[in-house]
Amino acid sequence: MANTDSDLPVQDFAVIDQRRGERTGYPEVVYCAGKTLDQAEAIIIRMRERGLPVLGTKADSALSERITARFPEAEYDALARTIAIGGLCPPEERQGLIAVVAAGTSDLGAAREAVRAAEFFGSKVELISDVGVAGIHRLFARLEDIRRANVIIAAAGMEGALAGVIAGLVSVPVIALPTSVGYGAAFGGVSALLGMLTSCAPGISVVNIDNGFGAGYQANLINKLAARPPKEKP
Amino acid sequence: MANTDSDLPVQDFAVIDQRRGERTGYPEVVYCAGKTLDQAEAIIIRMRERGLPVLGTKADSALSERITARFPEAEYDALARTIAIGGLCPPEERQGLIAVVAAGTSDLGAAREAVRAAEFFGSKVELISDVGVAGIHRLFARLEDIRRANVIIAAAGMEGALAGVIAGLVSVPVIALPTSVGYGAAFGGVSALLGMLTSCAPGISVVNIDNGFGAGYQANLINKLAARPPKEKP
Amino acid sequence: MANTDSDLPVQDFAVIDQRRGERTGYPEVVYCAGKTLDQAEAIIIRMRERGLPVLGTKADSALSERITARFPEAEYDALARTIAIGGLCPPEERQGLIAVVAAGTSDLGAAREAVRAAEFFGSKVELISDVGVAGIHRLFARLEDIRRANVIIAAAGMEGALAGVIAGLVSVPVIALPTSVGYGAAFGGVSALLGMLTSCAPGISVVNIDNGFGAGYQANLINKLAARPPKEKP
Amino acid sequence: MANTDSDLPVQDFAVIDQRRGERTGYPEVVYCAGKTLDQAEAIIIRMRERGLPVLGTKADSALSERITARFPEAEYDALARTIAIGGLCPPEERQGLIAVVAAGTSDLGAAREAVRAAEFFGSKVELISDVGVAGIHRLFARLEDIRRANVIIAAAGMEGALAGVIAGLVSVPVIALPTSVGYGAAFGGVSALLGMLTSCAPGISVVNIDNGFGAGYQANLINKLAARPPKEKP
Amino acid sequence: MANTDSDLPVQDFAVIDQRRGERTGYPEVVYCAGKTLDQAEAIIIRMRERGLPVLGTKADSALSERITARFPEAEYDALARTIAIGGLCPPEERQGLIAVVAAGTSDLGAAREAVRAAEFFGSKVELISDVGVAGIHRLFARLEDIRRANVIIAAAGMEGALAGVIAGLVSVPVIALPTSVGYGAAFGGVSALLGMLTSCAPGISVVNIDNGFGAGYQANLINKLAARPPKEKP
Amino acid sequence: MANTDSDLPVQDFAVIDQRRGERTGYPEVVYCAGKTLDQAEAIIIRMRERGLPVLGTKADSALSERITARFPEAEYDALARTIAIGGLCPPEERQGLIAVVAAGTSDLGAAREAVRAAEFFGSKVELISDVGVAGIHRLFARLEDIRRANVIIAAAGMEGALAGVIAGLVSVPVIALPTSVGYGAAFGGVSALLGMLTSCAPGISVVNIDNGFGAGYQANLINKLAARPPKEKP
Amino acid sequence: MANTDSDLPVQDFAVIDQRRGERTGYPEVVYCAGKTLDQAEAIIIRMRERGLPVLGTKADSALSERITARFPEAEYDALARTIAIGGLCPPEERQGLIAVVAAGTSDLGAAREAVRAAEFFGSKVELISDVGVAGIHRLFARLEDIRRANVIIAAAGMEGALAGVIAGLVSVPVIALPTSVGYGAAFGGVSALLGMLTSCAPGISVVNIDNGFGAGYQANLINKLAARPPKEKP
Amino acid sequence: MANTDSDLPVQDFAVIDQRRGERTGYPEVVYCAGKTLDQAEAIIIRMRERGLPVLGTKADSALSERITARFPEAEYDALARTIAIGGLCPPEERQGLIAVVAAGTSDLGAAREAVRAAEFFGSKVELISDVGVAGIHRLFARLEDIRRANVIIAAAGMEGALAGVIAGLVSVPVIALPTSVGYGAAFGGVSALLGMLTSCAPGISVVNIDNGFGAGYQANLINKLAARPPKEKP
Repeated sequence: MANTDSDLPVQDFAVIDQRRGERTGYPEVVYCAGKTLDQAEAIIIRMRERGLPVLGTKADSALSERITARFPEAEYDALARTIAIGGLCPPEERQGLIAVVAAGTSDLGAAREAVRAAEFFGSKVELISDVGVAGIHRLFARLEDIRRANVIIAAAGMEGALAGVIAGLVSVPVIALPTSVGYGAAFGGVSALLGMLTSCAPGISVVNIDNGFGAGYQANLINKLAARPPKEKP
Repeated sequence: MANTDSDLPVQDFAVIDQRRGERTGYPEVVYCAGKTLDQAEAIIIRMRERGLPVLGTKADSALSERITARFPEAEYDALARTIAIGGLCPPEERQGLIAVVAAGTSDLGAAREAVRAAEFFGSKVELISDVGVAGIHRLFARLEDIRRANVIIAAAGMEGALAGVIAGLVSVPVIALPTSVGYGAAFGGVSALLGMLTSCAPGISVVNIDNGFGAGYQANLINKLAARPPKEKP
Repeated sequence: MANTDSDLPVQDFAVIDQRRGERTGYPEVVYCAGKTLDQAEAIIIRMRERGLPVLGTKADSALSERITARFPEAEYDALARTIAIGGLCPPEERQGLIAVVAAGTSDLGAAREAVRAAEFFGSKVELISDVGVAGIHRLFARLEDIRRANVIIAAAGMEGALAGVIAGLVSVPVIALPTSVGYGAAFGGVSALLGMLTSCAPGISVVNIDNGFGAGYQANLINKLAARPPKEKP
Repeated sequence: MANTDSDLPVQDFAVIDQRRGERTGYPEVVYCAGKTLDQAEAIIIRMRERGLPVLGTKADSALSERITARFPEAEYDALARTIAIGGLCPPEERQGLIAVVAAGTSDLGAAREAVRAAEFFGSKVELISDVGVAGIHRLFARLEDIRRANVIIAAAGMEGALAGVIAGLVSVPVIALPTSVGYGAAFGGVSALLGMLTSCAPGISVVNIDNGFGAGYQANLINKLAARPPKEKP
Repeated sequence: MANTDSDLPVQDFAVIDQRRGERTGYPEVVYCAGKTLDQAEAIIIRMRERGLPVLGTKADSALSERITARFPEAEYDALARTIAIGGLCPPEERQGLIAVVAAGTSDLGAAREAVRAAEFFGSKVELISDVGVAGIHRLFARLEDIRRANVIIAAAGMEGALAGVIAGLVSVPVIALPTSVGYGAAFGGVSALLGMLTSCAPGISVVNIDNGFGAGYQANLINKLAARPPKEKP
Repeated sequence: MANTDSDLPVQDFAVIDQRRGERTGYPEVVYCAGKTLDQAEAIIIRMRERGLPVLGTKADSALSERITARFPEAEYDALARTIAIGGLCPPEERQGLIAVVAAGTSDLGAAREAVRAAEFFGSKVELISDVGVAGIHRLFARLEDIRRANVIIAAAGMEGALAGVIAGLVSVPVIALPTSVGYGAAFGGVSALLGMLTSCAPGISVVNIDNGFGAGYQANLINKLAARPPKEKP
Repeated sequence: MANTDSDLPVQDFAVIDQRRGERTGYPEVVYCAGKTLDQAEAIIIRMRERGLPVLGTKADSALSERITARFPEAEYDALARTIAIGGLCPPEERQGLIAVVAAGTSDLGAAREAVRAAEFFGSKVELISDVGVAGIHRLFARLEDIRRANVIIAAAGMEGALAGVIAGLVSVPVIALPTSVGYGAAFGGVSALLGMLTSCAPGISVVNIDNGFGAGYQANLINKLAARPPKEKP
Repeated sequence: MANTDSDLPVQDFAVIDQRRGERTGYPEVVYCAGKTLDQAEAIIIRMRERGLPVLGTKADSALSERITARFPEAEYDALARTIAIGGLCPPEERQGLIAVVAAGTSDLGAAREAVRAAEFFGSKVELISDVGVAGIHRLFARLEDIRRANVIIAAAGMEGALAGVIAGLVSVPVIALPTSVGYGAAFGGVSALLGMLTSCAPGISVVNIDNGFGAGYQANLINKLAARPPKEKP
């Protein structure tokens, strides 16, 4: 007789981190890869029962169908592979400004995951696409837009040079988001990751390959610091 | 007849990036590794002639002796391997607060490079040492100090778990600084780097192994955003 | 004319290690990956003919169907990918206590393979799930349960920090089980593996990525040492 | 003016983990690599002031001279690179039995670090040397000695096959200790590490390359479990 | 309009190395991976037209069907993934003796590719399976058979220790054949490859991962040297 | 409700680099991998609307069908995975000569991508196939053809030795094109890449693994320099 | 009695490739690393006896002293680590133009090796230094100088982005020269190498890390093609 | 009080494998790297006391001085880093023929280690140097010499192409010996190793990087098979 984990009640495999909001100010997010459909759905249902907004990342279309069938208000972004139900604030109350800059069309998946995450947590975001360094005038054409932001996410695959070039042109933090775009010696994003880590321009810090969520989350934290009044006595 | 690059005038091998201040708000820094003593000294002299404050990183004791002989006001930190002449503001005018948290005594070199950089650019910094996750109560004992900061630098070698544990406990950005502390499968900091990049806690971005300067610079940018009044219209 | 290895009698490709029980105290286990269905089935039939209990690991659902058709008493665990027929002792006679601690829901596959193996060989096991270090209070909430065990298996992917944090909190051996959970710089479990190998907390030893069986086997050996009376004269 | 960390009082860079004994049953150990002579000495003095026994690992001869000058009772083992002052119990009270098996003469450094650590924490240890698998009869000649132990440490460089061969011959846990012995494709111990992790023999868990201390610590934990009476109610 | 290379006549993409026989004593072999079905078939037809025997390696079942439809005398070995038409001599004229020793059932694919290649070129071969080092008595039970050979191929995945153990027990060359059997830190055969390259036993040389053909070819060359009368004047 | 990037107008994700022609003399090329069918098609339509010739690389058959349905004049090369509409000049006006030399039949995909790219940009090309170094006389038989070229592309997988051997025999630049042909320690082209980078023969520079386009582009630049009259005053 | 290779006459270990000039148009160069002083000197003496000009690369100062003592006309460049005696043509007859562009002062060693090599073989060279992408206006300030060249060498360490940015701005081939400048994740030049190989800008080919000689040699070949009249009939 | 391993009697750390001769036909060899001078000397004295001939590998000059002081008949080869006392047979009785072919002067260290080992065990050896593939006519000039051998050792660093080119030209086994010659992407011999493992020419097997001893030992085994009369009935 075969048995599977779907026989288990959700509390036996997942512990909703309810105090996360108290500790960090933000609710938990569901990393959907590596979970069975049953596991992911059970966790989302549990979170909704507790009234928590839900952001699922690395969600495939099968999960999307399962969730949108149950929660018609869920929004699935096929390119970003995110699924969202609710959010921390309505769009019109989003604060500050984050610029998400993508080197090429192929980097849009990761870039849009960053957009979705930052917006979910309440930041205003502008997405600027296809301004890779191979045609650097395209970047200069958008420089004023980029400079208006409190923090910049630079998403690029292949050699990942975009982050360093931008960091040399602005006075705010750059979150570098390496993507798995490329082939051969791109090694699934490793080249971009290494290039971003070793950039000779200061003002860059880096997240995992294709971790648009992490970039958006970190940028949101920084953007909120910029948007709030300075601490009285740190 | 042997000739060397020391025959060349400095303008033939180094271009002081004078407009860097305009573009990014901060003066250039001298990365001393890989430069001959003559090259590094010539660049520093040129910067002083132009009235720029100087921060040299990855400076060894030979360079320290050369520079302090010429500029008695230079401060050399043997552990951080930094050399500083002047700074962006006097210590009493430093702003905000950055917490630099080091996992162990062996991580202090990288951590203090971060401290020196952030202070050079005008941030107030608190260094908290030897609170690695193997004895996690030591970290909890300092948690209130850590939580007062606008941004946190977590310096750790070996498995680099400190960054993720802290990020799960605070509501501000964590800059993860992997160090080359360790041996064998630590691979000169690679294990710490990978651990920090793949942490399951959000709110972390990572700089290069032993790049205390980069961590301090990035933290300073974020700290300044937190310390200034919010932008009127981003 | 095409011929395949299924033409061969089983004794021509597999040597049942019958004296293994004498040497090591435990029967052989069938590693099913990389074997054809015919090969795996033939080996299992041979073992049953000799009255040996069977534990198959890395078994897919096709093999499960083949084996449960022939041996209705076989138990297949789809998450653990194990198939078991019989065991060394009935559940009520299992000894001692092993705690299997999984960082997240996605780590359950490897964690349950460990559970199945340790139980097959006669250890009592408690599975504690979703207590990763990003929300460390979840771990503390279960610490008393964990501390009751003779030996602990810590299963985690991504940065694998769970093993080091636990080892700093207990006085028994921790077997670290890195999992392939994660993406990008997780490199299929390499980040977790390296993090566990280089942990600054002592009291950890590590098995291969996703090798739940190996963790369970090793923990069972240790648990049995703890559960038996001490050797008279070692 | 150059300043260094030796100006700092020890409490500013090192936090003695005094409650470690309560939590884990064993005092903290000093990892000397990456610390300056001043730092290491200050920590050791502080521990002695509190009456703690001291085990320093990865200690070079310069530190040895510094420490033995101050503490004449200190024992330095140049091959193991350990320095010890006191220990958890006198030699005649050491318990149980650990067999430390070294493949070749070149592996003795790591093997003896394991011996020193296990003895420091109170285990009886037997060291068996130069029984690598290239001349496997040498191993068989010592098999009875090996089988008397509660737990075995197998130290080997190059291909690291010793651990797997032993694990197939005994009924107790094997802690595999890869060493950096070898050249070329040995990659400083990586080949041995990988071979030990992927061994087809169960009953093996692995520590970091050259981590004799970690192997000795883990073996001591297991040996103590075997040497004590079984827990009443786990 | 789409066009493909199948429009090209075979002489435009493949140059049959007809003089190979003169230079090396053996005809060319067809490496089928990475070739389209059309390309592989065209080359085989061309070789048959010239009366050459054919050995195809890394051939999948689709190619097998294509070739056996045209050449009913073709022999396809699904496990070895070889396809053979003819051979250098009839089975009864094969010379000398090669022992192909496989660690486990999962290594049989590579091992049988070696068998097929060595037989194709005229060597007598004995295949000995499932004698991995985890149960070393199984190897000793077959040692006399192994020692009768002029040269030995040792096929193993995971830690690849089999080659070193055998080489310490015999007086003839061992060709080590690492296989991609295993998971996690086996890295698709890299662990076995490294283990074999760094074995402390002399008398081993190594071929590429899963390169059964290369092992069989090299063993055949050595076996022929042993089987022929010694050169008059080298 | 699920939405995808296909809702976006093309100008929101792709910036046609119109001034690229002015800057570099050559129009932009469409890298199709990692783009959705909708994205790739929208970009190609936009380029055609502006009268630009189109070269798409890494295009699969699904995209080929989509594009040839709309643009019947499009040419798809299934082996090269290129799609071309128009070109910089008609075939009869192509200039100079590039020799593309492929080691084996399996390298033809990359080699033909190079041919397609160089011809698209206006170079005359000769493709010479199956002349790998294992049968070096085949290479010598074509040496005169190879020597007539202004620049040579050497495409090879596995050990990639072809580039070095050719460079030792000619007086013009060799562009080395490593391919992903091979298995095991070929590591998807890494062995060939490293071999080409470290060749002891000078006169070689290397492009990414399987980057036939890059090799063809670079060879075209060099061929044009050779075919034009020398600059009056550089 | 100890004997060494210096007992051997030079013809027993080195074969001067005299026909190299006929085949490739250029004399052989002496790679000095890994040769004993005696070996390197013997080879250079032999070449001078035959009237060949000498270029030695990777030469340290000990060799420099040995050679300049015997050949006072030898020129040693300590930064480039080259030693030259004679050359293919006097400086005033050098042809065409190569631009060698170095990202930073630390890259000057590799860059000057390229300069020395290209000049040795008869090309005119301009060296442009310290124009890395972190301050991209410095690059634009020199763009006209760069654009006058027939071929460009871009030398950069760390992330190596300089090559891609330049290639997007010019219409001639770029030879990318990765340097070992950097630390941590720069991995001794690997990051720069990967970044250059995967650049999204076409028109780049890459040489080995720190292979200034190879870059200069390849650039010289291309420059000569540009400087000569086009071939009558290719 | 500091104690070291030199206090131990040799039988406590080294087990002379006396029966090795019976099992494999050849005495044990002393791998000197990683042993202290005292350890290595003690082992050599012990072997001489038992009348065994001694071959020490990876021996530095300090050990050479120690040993030649005690055994004036010892022969030290500084390039090969071998030390030999006696041998299996006098030079005039050496049998068969092995050709050791070195690509360049820098490869002579590894190549001569192979020569020394093969001669020690009783094979006749011819060393052919500086015939790398960059000037392939040098190889052809020596081809007749090479073809007279029973087995060939091909020593090369950098891309290691020599082995594959030779294997395509001869009808006997080639033992490929990768060397650590080179820099940058040569990765200390890894490029050569990978190139040799993946060579498209069959008839090659590979030993560890710089393992001249292993190549010489294996070639000697093969040469002896060729030189003896064929086995009556294998």
